[in-house]
Amino acid sequence: MKAGILCVGTELVTGLIRDANAYFFSQRLVEKGVFPKFVMFVPDEKEDIANGLTFLLDDPEVEVIIVSGGLGPTEDDFTKEVIAELLGRKLVFDELTWKKICQFYWNLRKTEPPENNKKQALIPEGATVLPNELGTAPGLKMEMRGKTIFVVPGVPREAEFFWSVIAGEIHAGGSSFYRTKILKFCGIGESQLATLMKPFLASLPEKVRFAFLPNYGEVWFYLYASEAGHQRREELDRLVEEVANIYGDFLFSPYGDTLEEAIGKILRERRLKLAIAESCTGGLLGDRITNVPGSSDYFERGYVVYSNRAKVEELGVPKEILEVKGAVSEEVACLMAQRAREKAAADIGMGITGIAGPTGATDTKPLGLTYMAVADERRVEVKKYQFGGDRLMNKRFASQFALSMLFLFLRGRG
Amino acid sequence: MKAGILCVGTELVTGLIRDANAYFFSQRLVEKGVFPKFVMFVPDEKEDIANGLTFLLDDPEVEVIIVSGGLGPTEDDFTKEVIAELLGRKLVFDELTWKKICQFYWNLRKTEPPENNKKQALIPEGATVLPNELGTAPGLKMEMRGKTIFVVPGVPREAEFFWSVIAGEIHAGGSSFYRTKILKFCGIGESQLATLMKPFLASLPEKVRFAFLPNYGEVWFYLYASEAGHQRREELDRLVEEVANIYGDFLFSPYGDTLEEAIGKILRERRLKLAIAESCTGGLLGDRITNVPGSSDYFERGYVVYSNRAKVEELGVPKEILEVKGAVSEEVACLMAQRAREKAAADIGMGITGIAGPTGATDTKPLGLTYMAVADERRVEVKKYQFGGDRLMNKRFASQFALSMLFLFLRGRG
Repeated sequence: MKAGILCVGTELVTGLIRDANAYFFSQRLVEKGVFPKFVMFVPDEKEDIANGLTFLLDDPEVEVIIVSGGLGPTEDDFTKEVIAELLGRKLVFDELTWKKICQFYWNLRKTEPPENNKKQALIPEGATVLPNELGTAPGLKMEMRGKTIFVVPGVPREAEFFWSVIAGEIHAGGSSFYRTKILKFCGIGESQLATLMKPFLASLPEKVRFAFLPNYGEVWFYLYASEAGHQRREELDRLVEEVANIYGDFLFSPYGDTLEEAIGKILRERRLKLAIAESCTGGLLGDRITNVPGSSDYFERGYVVYSNRAKVEELGVPKEILEVKGAVSEEVACLMAQRAREKAAADIGMGITGIAGPTGATDTKPLGLTYMAVADERRVEVKKYQFGGDRLMNKRFASQFALSMLFLFLRGRG
Repeated sequence: MKAGILCVGTELVTGLIRDANAYFFSQRLVEKGVFPKFVMFVPDEKEDIANGLTFLLDDPEVEVIIVSGGLGPTEDDFTKEVIAELLGRKLVFDELTWKKICQFYWNLRKTEPPENNKKQALIPEGATVLPNELGTAPGLKMEMRGKTIFVVPGVPREAEFFWSVIAGEIHAGGSSFYRTKILKFCGIGESQLATLMKPFLASLPEKVRFAFLPNYGEVWFYLYASEAGHQRREELDRLVEEVANIYGDFLFSPYGDTLEEAIGKILRERRLKLAIAESCTGGLLGDRITNVPGSSDYFERGYVVYSNRAKVEELGVPKEILEVKGAVSEEVACLMAQRAREKAAADIGMGITGIAGPTGATDTKPLGLTYMAVADERRVEVKKYQFGGDRLMNKRFASQFALSMLFLFLRGRG
């Protein structure tokens, strides 16, 4: 089965915002065995939306079309009008949808919605309304020329919310494209891993393809078969197991989908509490750790000791060390990890200090220099990194390598 | 002038990698006064590439087409074959290009290139070769049916390299697209703002278009003219000023591009120090504040008081209040803001406490319930929100509305 994705929004074609929905739906469709053949972005103009949609409707292979965006309450939102016109149907006011919009609005802002929200309750005749639990614009499902069209809001969280509905409606056939779960590694580079895995890659059966995808310090390895079917699925499962057995040292994905989840799983299983102290990452490490549901089971607290004064006052880092060694130093990273652990009465402590940039470099300490440390009751481990990105990238890299370090520390701790 | 962008790659339509080139070229084209009308991703299949390109060639308004990807040395790279066929031209071996490929290969790997690289020296007859300084695949420029087609490699670094060449070849005429700066609002909903702005929108001159874009609690409003020119530019500047004058209460963009920057600008100008205490956001608020370069000038520190014990030990929130009112309460939010401010000896304190979910709700406190407070030396302000998203969305919303609240508090403080 093949699909087309149409994202509506002048903000997308002009690069005002970066696409998230096409990227999300592409991945979900592939997992579901549906190949996304075309992805299109069109501006908020009636004719352009119509032309894009017609292109997808004209393709003989495309069976499912996902349209996102252009469902807002304002005058530049045309998606439903265009679809109704293409399908030769009227837009009708749906009372039930309007009630839901009013209810949603009341919960959020304690007032009635303005008049223009009524537009969001207009539905093309014959369309199935898919209720939106996260916003005012409902999703739609329609059949046209033998194809199924799903229409969802452009707000990424809302678009993603509708995936479970769409997934339930798609029934991919036997000749579908099939991909396994990705195997995710940390603490090892892409070419190192590829070299290590050479014998395995040489032994792969025909029609099984592989790819390495470096991802901010993680390496994602995936295997897929260009033809699927039950047998092929079993073969891939066996190969995944083989990879995990032979090359599992740096593999975190059996513990969870993300590194944060993998860490959380270990901490929860072993009933360990974590405290962190961050400087250059400014809270990003805590944010990522607490993205995992139930992280309050193991995440005790965090100290965002951004200033030197905060490092002294909150964690008792001696002033002399800050003066002699500097805030970005091995010593300070270790003290941050140890003191955070002690002060919070936690089992594991982690500290990060670095120069995110674009300013703050010195003669001996370049931009991107970062130290991170992990401590438990017996020891403290410290690592030094030199990142080469801009401010946001260096923050992201620092949090990523800190999570890698924490994961490997916890695994090594036994 | 209008443009189309075609990105070739199965890795793009399947979401294996996230698009970077279309996003990059869209922004550059807009800056250059060219409106990118359509963006398309197609897989590495001859027919799909041909269909995508034909769609763009058939559009009467598109004058410039940028094609990226499918220029590699391997068997799944078809872009040049497809283009040559569509144009009815032969592919010819270009000696000069081959010499450059050999030279590049030698510099990098100190060997001759493999035989399959010869494919990269094949050029459609009549095409202009654009030398690639960062890789082996050359860029191309061709004229067809009154349109100019640029073909560049898919590797983002290399694609970006070619922009300066493309930019030099595009001469956006008098009929080009021109967009103003966006006006960003916070603390008001999209439909509320649209209602408020109705008289202004009704008074807009012909050919000036507008759009509202809700963005996680912010609303972005932008104005653009479908025809540019010096006069039109001045007209838009005047309209932007008009919006700022009439509807400026919730406007933050004159202070900075992002809300974080707008806040930073005010704090720096007034030499104020900020301390924050976060619970449900887990560090996200600190992360966002410290995304702004130079935020160490005003961001003193943050407390990620995730557990109740942390709230008591770090901020002195009385146990009794936590027991009677609960951690997610007006009282605790206020105390977090005030105590963070006092303990850090800062000027402004902010506190957030809420239930991000999916667990943690009680009979009286539903998922998504969030309190946030801002305090200065004179007063403390508190707000209650009921968010309806999943965990990540609630965290994101909480941080967003906290920034909105902080911005409006700082502005109101005078």
